[in-house]
Amino acid sequence: MIPDQLTQGQYDTVYNLLSLVIASQLFTALFLVAAQNRVLPRYRSALLVSATVCGIAAYHYFRIFNSFKEAFVTDAIGGRGVYTQAPGASFNEGYRYVDWFLTVPLLLVELVVVLALAKKLQASLLARLVPASALMIALGYPGEIATSDAARNVWGLLSTIPFLYILYVLFVELTRSLDRQPVAVRNTVSKLRILLFATWGVYPIAYLVPLLGIDGANAWVGKQAGYSFADILAKCLYGLIIYRIARLKSFADDPQFAAEEEGHEDLQGSRA
Amino acid sequence: MIPDQLTQGQYDTVYNLLSLVIASQLFTALFLVAAQNRVLPRYRSALLVSATVCGIAAYHYFRIFNSFKEAFVTDAIGGRGVYTQAPGASFNEGYRYVDWFLTVPLLLVELVVVLALAKKLQASLLARLVPASALMIALGYPGEIATSDAARNVWGLLSTIPFLYILYVLFVELTRSLDRQPVAVRNTVSKLRILLFATWGVYPIAYLVPLLGIDGANAWVGKQAGYSFADILAKCLYGLIIYRIARLKSFADDPQFAAEEEGHEDLQGSRA
Repeated sequence: MIPDQLTQGQYDTVYNLLSLVIASQLFTALFLVAAQNRVLPRYRSALLVSATVCGIAAYHYFRIFNSFKEAFVTDAIGGRGVYTQAPGASFNEGYRYVDWFLTVPLLLVELVVVLALAKKLQASLLARLVPASALMIALGYPGEIATSDAARNVWGLLSTIPFLYILYVLFVELTRSLDRQPVAVRNTVSKLRILLFATWGVYPIAYLVPLLGIDGANAWVGKQAGYSFADILAKCLYGLIIYRIARLKSFADDPQFAAEEEGHEDLQGSRA
Repeated sequence: MIPDQLTQGQYDTVYNLLSLVIASQLFTALFLVAAQNRVLPRYRSALLVSATVCGIAAYHYFRIFNSFKEAFVTDAIGGRGVYTQAPGASFNEGYRYVDWFLTVPLLLVELVVVLALAKKLQASLLARLVPASALMIALGYPGEIATSDAARNVWGLLSTIPFLYILYVLFVELTRSLDRQPVAVRNTVSKLRILLFATWGVYPIAYLVPLLGIDGANAWVGKQAGYSFADILAKCLYGLIIYRIARLKSFADDPQFAAEEEGHEDLQGSRA
């Protein structure tokens, strides 16, 4: 539920957080597009998908930001006031689900594509991860807009089933196929999976907040902050780690490319 | 007919669906432009046309979204209200027809161009498919804005004639010229045609809804949902399958390009 009123500080906090997310997503997207030539052609698709994810998130945060701005009004002057809900407008939490419905499957595509696994294995992983993640989001939405706790519980529980399945595929099945990756890549993929697990964990916690009876403006501001930071970590940082994996794999595949791209002091020293 | 009032849930559903379509079309268009170098130059025209289709659709969905927002008002506070038609504004369904008039012929151009058929055959297919598809949309429009069922019936029937002709060209004539395509391309083209048939089928069904006497807000929301998902599948997914065909054909044409683009484990293993 949206709080009936916000203090100036609470309003400004949400306002600035939403703007922080826009800046993070937009410029991660632009960076990933501009960095195409920093990896071998075979890894550029993974970078493009990562850029697309951050671009889609930037678009939705523009929408969320505007929706928030329209949903609250104040008649105070000079930033020392109380904000109340604007008549004829409401804060649209649904944008988040629309965003996740598109971006969460794509986040799994990034991960699978950048590993350049055997074709059959890649096809099999994608054929299971993409539908499972879309299902996870689709099952969460009716619970989010439900007015009763019971409905929230049931949809939340149903949504957890595909989530656990995704974790199983990533932590059990994928592990088996990491043996042939260079050590640095294997370690980075492990970090990426932990990031995924830790950030995706924020969403069900935020989902459960209303069930815990925590309410009021502070809880709501906390929920918006949780979603905002989770979205930055799960999309921007995640996309940059994908970029790191693509770099490492490019260097491992092509020593000539590595020499051109890596100008570190230690390497220069050894060449002299 | 536009319903006299919408519940908050119905209003939000349409609002979020229209935004989902904007995000899908806009970022598919950007992805297809950014992915130009992932196919050989000879297939880039097809990608550009696909990107153009999604870009045009994104533009029209911005219009549709704004038209929807202006057409309904509420004086409720905090997203718990009823939306009624705004005086002085109406939801403009005509945007969809303007969009289709431009994009539907282009969707057929994508398909023919990406196959890189013999020049004469390509010219002959385009000379028939493009006018037929423009005619199909132009004949549907008077029926859509007609107030009588009889007029809707007659225009709908007339519009079906070019639709059947397009299906004949795609499923009979085109099949004959697929023999010389690589097997993977032939299979993907078959999937694409089924997607085209299945998604284009949604439009006449939505067109017929008023004739079936199904009315009221839920039917109207259902129709908007049907158009939205059909447009995502018929343009975004369709464009991505065109991209897939362009990749497959690029790899078949140029093994060197395939080696650079495909870094899959199994291929790397066989090279070592």
